[in-house]
Amino acid sequence: MILDLINKENDIKMIPEEKWELLAEEIREFLINKISVTGGHLGSNLGVIELTMAMHLSLDLPKDKIVWDVGHQSYTHKILTGRKDGFDNLRKFGGMAGFPKTKESDCDAFNTGHSSTSISAALGFAKARDIKKEDYTVMAVIGDGSLTGGMAYEALNNASKIEKNFIVVLNDNNMSISENVGGVSKYLNSIRTTEGYQEIKDNIFYKVLTLPNGQKIVDSIRRAKSSVKSLVIPGMYFEDMGIKYLGPVDGHNIKEMMRVIEEAKRVKGPVLIHAITKKGKGFEPAERHPARFHGAEPFDILTGLPLNSGSKAKYTDIFSTVMVKLGERNEDVVAITAAMPDGTGLKRFRNAYPERFFDVGIAEEHAVTFAAGLAAGGLKPIVAIYSSFLQRAYDQIIHDVCIQNLPVVFAIDRAGIVGSDGETHQGIFDISYLSTIPNMHVMAPKNKWELSDMIKFAIKLNKPVAVRYPRGEAYDGLEDYRQDIELGKAEMIYEESGVALFALGSMVKTAEMVRDLLHEKGIKCSLVNARFAKPIDEEMVSYLSKGHDLIVTLEENVATGGFGEKVREYMEENELDCKLLTVAIPDDYIEHGNVELLKKEIGIDAESIAQKIIRKI
Amino acid sequence: MILDLINKENDIKMIPEEKWELLAEEIREFLINKISVTGGHLGSNLGVIELTMAMHLSLDLPKDKIVWDVGHQSYTHKILTGRKDGFDNLRKFGGMAGFPKTKESDCDAFNTGHSSTSISAALGFAKARDIKKEDYTVMAVIGDGSLTGGMAYEALNNASKIEKNFIVVLNDNNMSISENVGGVSKYLNSIRTTEGYQEIKDNIFYKVLTLPNGQKIVDSIRRAKSSVKSLVIPGMYFEDMGIKYLGPVDGHNIKEMMRVIEEAKRVKGPVLIHAITKKGKGFEPAERHPARFHGAEPFDILTGLPLNSGSKAKYTDIFSTVMVKLGERNEDVVAITAAMPDGTGLKRFRNAYPERFFDVGIAEEHAVTFAAGLAAGGLKPIVAIYSSFLQRAYDQIIHDVCIQNLPVVFAIDRAGIVGSDGETHQGIFDISYLSTIPNMHVMAPKNKWELSDMIKFAIKLNKPVAVRYPRGEAYDGLEDYRQDIELGKAEMIYEESGVALFALGSMVKTAEMVRDLLHEKGIKCSLVNARFAKPIDEEMVSYLSKGHDLIVTLEENVATGGFGEKVREYMEENELDCKLLTVAIPDDYIEHGNVELLKKEIGIDAESIAQKIIRKI
Repeated sequence: MILDLINKENDIKMIPEEKWELLAEEIREFLINKISVTGGHLGSNLGVIELTMAMHLSLDLPKDKIVWDVGHQSYTHKILTGRKDGFDNLRKFGGMAGFPKTKESDCDAFNTGHSSTSISAALGFAKARDIKKEDYTVMAVIGDGSLTGGMAYEALNNASKIEKNFIVVLNDNNMSISENVGGVSKYLNSIRTTEGYQEIKDNIFYKVLTLPNGQKIVDSIRRAKSSVKSLVIPGMYFEDMGIKYLGPVDGHNIKEMMRVIEEAKRVKGPVLIHAITKKGKGFEPAERHPARFHGAEPFDILTGLPLNSGSKAKYTDIFSTVMVKLGERNEDVVAITAAMPDGTGLKRFRNAYPERFFDVGIAEEHAVTFAAGLAAGGLKPIVAIYSSFLQRAYDQIIHDVCIQNLPVVFAIDRAGIVGSDGETHQGIFDISYLSTIPNMHVMAPKNKWELSDMIKFAIKLNKPVAVRYPRGEAYDGLEDYRQDIELGKAEMIYEESGVALFALGSMVKTAEMVRDLLHEKGIKCSLVNARFAKPIDEEMVSYLSKGHDLIVTLEENVATGGFGEKVREYMEENELDCKLLTVAIPDDYIEHGNVELLKKEIGIDAESIAQKIIRKI
Repeated sequence: MILDLINKENDIKMIPEEKWELLAEEIREFLINKISVTGGHLGSNLGVIELTMAMHLSLDLPKDKIVWDVGHQSYTHKILTGRKDGFDNLRKFGGMAGFPKTKESDCDAFNTGHSSTSISAALGFAKARDIKKEDYTVMAVIGDGSLTGGMAYEALNNASKIEKNFIVVLNDNNMSISENVGGVSKYLNSIRTTEGYQEIKDNIFYKVLTLPNGQKIVDSIRRAKSSVKSLVIPGMYFEDMGIKYLGPVDGHNIKEMMRVIEEAKRVKGPVLIHAITKKGKGFEPAERHPARFHGAEPFDILTGLPLNSGSKAKYTDIFSTVMVKLGERNEDVVAITAAMPDGTGLKRFRNAYPERFFDVGIAEEHAVTFAAGLAAGGLKPIVAIYSSFLQRAYDQIIHDVCIQNLPVVFAIDRAGIVGSDGETHQGIFDISYLSTIPNMHVMAPKNKWELSDMIKFAIKLNKPVAVRYPRGEAYDGLEDYRQDIELGKAEMIYEESGVALFALGSMVKTAEMVRDLLHEKGIKCSLVNARFAKPIDEEMVSYLSKGHDLIVTLEENVATGGFGEKVREYMEENELDCKLLTVAIPDDYIEHGNVELLKKEIGIDAESIAQKIIRKI
């Protein structure tokens, strides 16, 4: 195996040119084998093997800096920087991360996870280099999907001012996670189908030259203003922004990529290399089903089918179903996703009501303000965005939705601890940041039926409202508890005395286990499903404080600004005479790993909570 | 006066064409006169008088929808929709807002205040219109400055997909608040200096046609791919994104503007009108000093000089001075602003160290991640952004700065109640949203010397840290209290017993007044300057709880997730036996008006606080 020769950064430079293709194939096989066992991002990584090899052959790591946009495509980079062995514990607790991590390797220049940040961060490196009079190459690698995010454009707009070398590699696979959207995507498509830079240049000039007086015309075109250049340069869009364009180039052709990278390194100023790649390249199931193999569960290599498909419905499935029903019942219902028709479950809504479905690209800010506009125009928009990505639209939620009190429903998937994607993807701030916002309502369902009920309630509420629910299987316990949802009202599940567990969303299930543990110790225990994090059910808090010695709030969110704090505030302001324990996520980042393990680690599993309660009473 | 004939929307349509110019002049004079007395946004409004008139002549309000980006340029729109009389109480408590407000008029389709939202919101209206099969015109009016904000680009990218009419008016004055920045700005400049659409088309084709075989070449160009179109169309950048471009057109020529608007209304799909205007048009001081007349204080019409220049230094001035000093002492110090070199006070730093100063345009997201990159590259970046605008970068602060624990200093001006700009500009959420973020530190100075000390401390801390301070005059009391800043340590100012006022930042001054009021009633009272909102000084809280009957936290921020909640959490978890009163901003939006009036209104003035304390003890 040639791959055995790669044990640290720059080892690839010892591999003779004629073995490069073989190495690429070995890496491809390695990735398919490993990810089929652990799960992970497959398609994007298969698409950038040759591109990454070309970069590593052309650069000097860790002196040179690569910033990977999103970062889920950094697996080949990890292999080429001596982290092959990490793949056995990829994205597991204590194991290697699925994203670049500065603490994992000197060759990871910058942590990523969310989209469209790479050009900004890389530009920071480049400017720091120039101010400190250092000398190294800085390269941002960004997918065409990430280019639908506004901050990438903010960065390109600023990149135009740099006077020293600065390289952006546009990894164009015509995909974000699902299909790509928008005008720029169409534009890139039009380039993608043209001949290469050199060919088109020669071609057009040649044609003109064959005309009588052709030389004169060519000279006149050369003298003409910059706009004329797009006659001969496909990337005029970028040139218009002041960025030199090189491409399109075949991202799977290592030598061609290296030639263009060398050319790019000679440019004084910002330069964009437009590399055309294929997501899932070399693994047929991934080429055919890019969304499924974006973040893949363990799968069978022969069939490409997931190994543990799991028989239980996920919260996403429940949301998916209720949206289709709502769409049928109410013609004003429209749905918006930011590049996640599959991930959010809105695909079925799209298929049923294509004209009322909007995939805006990786553009959470636009998604929210667009929804506000739809609401102002008389519709009932539901915006489905993962908790950690909705952080991008905090200002828009305040400024465009809530100040005007517009009826926008936020369906917040991946709220709470998400597991293997780690720090950047944990959805642990949303209750806090949403609760700061006047006019906003925040709910979380205890089980699958309640998610359905809450979405229906949210649409009827006719005000800004968020429903947050976790990643993965929907809880199907407590099926007999399905009181009507009422604004700001909690649901009593088991009423006893002693300890009152006042649990929000996913923590109701945990609270049931806590209650069993307390019962084992002979401690009486009520269980209330909070339902609302904003507004909290103040009457219920008063009521519980009278019949219990201790109220315990439980939430899968940071403590600061969370549900528990609001309960504490109410109790204190009303001088309620009852002890309070707030269970929430501590003020720290949570790495990747199995969700149950992580919950134990941070002390919000049933056992830890029961112990805390016993200490408190 | 022709202006007397304008008393409601569409009245302008009764004014004969030959009087339009006169009306424009009367509006210009009206605006200068009124704003010279009340203060307000002058330059931007003088620049869009004719453009607004053309829109009102061409549209049917309120049926048609106009979304004003930022909205500070909507004064002529307010005049033309029957709100002339409102200008006497412009931006005053209870008076007319300085931004569009749906509750002020049916003709204000959507509230704005922050930059770059208009295309998203307008696109929402347009899609709602089409889904509901209604028939009206939707127009977003956006400045070229707002086009440096990424979400405008996200929206343009999505606008390309609309099949029915959708109009964006690009109000291009080559300015945001100060000078404009970036590649797109340069690009627009290059168009601005070309001849108009028709002229350039005729011209180039004419030239080619005069060549031998010219007709053949023209035909061949016509047959060529779309990229060739930029030979004849200046707005190829927008056309590349799938948006039809009309322009450039003189935005001060009403008839020409109307002609182009009519043409735009006939387009099936998205269309951008590129109108060239002059900020401050017709008032020489405003033309010459666009930044000063962006948001103007009352001024003398003859000289253009402010009437009450105020002799006291503002917090912004203090920040400005300390930055120049720091820049001199430490060559690693770099400064970043998002289009506010004047507003943030960084102009002096820019003048002294131009190579270490970055104005990134209205691009808060990029600003923060760029700063993270600069820090990763070994520099000491200070990002100066107003509190309400920093909401835009909440995710980037978490994702790019704090997860990696990078030493970025956030200088947060306009924190707290800002006054006349109203809801969208109040800086009342920052303590909460920043406190949710692990690794972040949050400080607020009591007076001008402390701001200076805190910025110096922040740079030395070498971790993510925010210093928040209010708009306007810096407090210059308590000059004898200047203990060294220590991480997480508060400062005891007056130590007595009874009530302990534990005040953060601007509320220290208020707390002094509260203390005087309590003393008058014979109530003893300590005063502590909290300094840190995160981490809070737990030792101090313990100490205060022992020697006092009541601790009162005071902050100019919403209660949820704020400083007071952290004190309460600590007291409760440690079962400290002392009453607590938290003074903070209630869960509601705060309109425009005088800051002192607003504080009284929401109960955080000295008198209201003293009464609350007396009730509590």
